[in-house]
Amino acid sequence: MRLTTLCYIEKDGCYLMMNRNKKKNDENQGKWIGVGGHLEDNESPEECIVREVREETGMELTEWKLRGILTFILPDWGNEMTFLYTGKAEGCVREECAEGVLKWIPKEKIMDLALWEGDRAFLPLLEKSEDCFSMKLIYASGGELKGCVLDGKPLGKTE
Amino acid sequence: MRLTTLCYIEKDGCYLMMNRNKKKNDENQGKWIGVGGHLEDNESPEECIVREVREETGMELTEWKLRGILTFILPDWGNEMTFLYTGKAEGCVREECAEGVLKWIPKEKIMDLALWEGDRAFLPLLEKSEDCFSMKLIYASGGELKGCVLDGKPLGKTE
Repeated sequence: MRLTTLCYIEKDGCYLMMNRNKKKNDENQGKWIGVGGHLEDNESPEECIVREVREETGMELTEWKLRGILTFILPDWGNEMTFLYTGKAEGCVREECAEGVLKWIPKEKIMDLALWEGDRAFLPLLEKSEDCFSMKLIYASGGELKGCVLDGKPLGKTE
Repeated sequence: MRLTTLCYIEKDGCYLMMNRNKKKNDENQGKWIGVGGHLEDNESPEECIVREVREETGMELTEWKLRGILTFILPDWGNEMTFLYTGKAEGCVREECAEGVLKWIPKEKIMDLALWEGDRAFLPLLEKSEDCFSMKLIYASGGELKGCVLDGKPLGKTE
């Protein structure tokens, strides 16, 4: 199981979003997601997200909160466990990094972006409660979301 | 990185503890710990802990809460990431399972048991706050705790 981190950095009612349009063979090609990446050897999740935010955005994460655990079942790419954060960061954000273009997007416009179907399931939870949730997102080969389980309870795909 | 779950089941002011005294080559040999085990393919952390509690104790986990993420640096055994829960369970507990003997131990007597040094660092946090913490526990070869980092901040070993 791959271990990754993902952070939605907040500022002035916006989230910092990355449009993944740089890497070849990127499973996220064309999609808008937060910043983050893979855990390196001996890293804890928070060490990973602090490093990834620095590398990808040029900013320094000053506050962070674990908001969820995401278990991705991905037949095409291999399963992935993601530690999901929100946070605040200091410094000027880069316009782009090796993986894509970075933009501050008002929270109410996030759902208008090209997002993974599963991201549409967990992003609203970030606004609902500060509690840490666990969401399992079951994708089919090809990228269609087949199932979504929140804290052990199956949900409809768009609930 | 191995992925595991660990649950301290609560009842009447006690935690259900297992004295690991059954398996050969058990890194936990002789120690008292909670119940739990390794994530299987396609399992989310909560699916794993519900299954492990059922298999090890005969009880059914009816409530659970993610209380912490533990990153174990273990030169002798390979690193491990543990999802730490507290919970409540229904049914009669077994006296023992394949991995050890099970006993309800009053919370105030837990620290008198043979515990991993790192467990002494995180167990008190379960009584302090409901917030989900992240603790990195850095062991040396031989089992001595060399460092402990709580939510990104280094702690003294016994703080």
